[in-house]
Amino acid sequence: MHVGIIGGTGPEGRGLAARLSAAGLTTLVGSREPDRARETVRAIQRGDTALPLEGVANAEAVARGDLLFLAVPFAHAAAIIETYQHQFRAGTVLVDVTVPVAFAGGVPMLVELPEGSAAEFVRGRLPPEVRLAAALKTIPASVLEHVDVPLECDDFVCGDSPEARAATIDILKRIPGLRPIDIGGLDAARTLERMAVLAIGINKRYRIRGARFRVVGL
Amino acid sequence: MHVGIIGGTGPEGRGLAARLSAAGLTTLVGSREPDRARETVRAIQRGDTALPLEGVANAEAVARGDLLFLAVPFAHAAAIIETYQHQFRAGTVLVDVTVPVAFAGGVPMLVELPEGSAAEFVRGRLPPEVRLAAALKTIPASVLEHVDVPLECDDFVCGDSPEARAATIDILKRIPGLRPIDIGGLDAARTLERMAVLAIGINKRYRIRGARFRVVGL
Repeated sequence: MHVGIIGGTGPEGRGLAARLSAAGLTTLVGSREPDRARETVRAIQRGDTALPLEGVANAEAVARGDLLFLAVPFAHAAAIIETYQHQFRAGTVLVDVTVPVAFAGGVPMLVELPEGSAAEFVRGRLPPEVRLAAALKTIPASVLEHVDVPLECDDFVCGDSPEARAATIDILKRIPGLRPIDIGGLDAARTLERMAVLAIGINKRYRIRGARFRVVGL
Repeated sequence: MHVGIIGGTGPEGRGLAARLSAAGLTTLVGSREPDRARETVRAIQRGDTALPLEGVANAEAVARGDLLFLAVPFAHAAAIIETYQHQFRAGTVLVDVTVPVAFAGGVPMLVELPEGSAAEFVRGRLPPEVRLAAALKTIPASVLEHVDVPLECDDFVCGDSPEARAATIDILKRIPGLRPIDIGGLDAARTLERMAVLAIGINKRYRIRGARFRVVGL
């Protein structure tokens, strides 16, 4: 079982790679530049080469990953999917973690998309044989990256099929302190992306960095 | 200081009245039928007539309340505001707690409004001299009502002015176990109403009743 991260050298990708490998999952850190991917792997490993990480080209992550995370900035999502359009393996589960956010005078704003959400935007551009989930939208990169900080939060997982959600939850539940919650169809990403912007706004207003959510009563 | 609840005999209104009066706030429970309001008060008091509650007509709650909660079902919000259009006192803070939700085959769905949210819909119908906040959107009535159940959650407060938010937060922070969080302008209600629908969906999927949210890291 290999987990691939497309855009694994960005803040969210790095943090995810750190958490997944710490949980014992073999993780392919993808980048347009494999050298940068290998550099990121070394930075995460900090000498502990037993951490199951490999720095590769995005194309190799796509080719070898059994489950893929799309961790590029949202602005690059369409181009990346276009590039690998014919290289996704049938039945691959892709997990979109992007958040379409812009800042107007320091205030975070959701970028409104005709599709309703970044996840639905991505779905519309993927080959039909690739299954899509959305997850980690509300987990801040700044927290993910510091593996010594307990996550102590929930993650909301939606997707275009029960299979996509189950595969994603199966991976994410191995990360200590993270409780994945199944929230149904892909349109629920509309809520998650707004919650991500809400968390960024709370960070700014209260001068903190890692606002994230926990469901009480579950 | 009197808190008025327009629609205080519905599930959310009853729960709110129970929590506010338990916190020592004098609460006017409003209803179209004052007899029903008085009945609700008796049900909340359960013999403890020291609980500072009064059952009144909605019109009286509007006339005497220093801060008002709008706790009618969203479908009745426009008619209620129209009714009291000329009776709100200048400078009154109204707190919208409505959630525009519909059920399609048991699945909760947000009712999409051209204004973007129920709170913005309400704002567009209020006299300009009334200030509007939105709060308690994500707090389930079923939890509010049972005052022996600790809330242990956060409440997200947005509003059309810092004053409306501050007045609302000042009241809500007196409820034990509830931490009000200022999340800025009224358009943030778009996020809160979706989160309310998300919580209802989680309740249904996981067969629980009181899903609500806590911000971790704050």
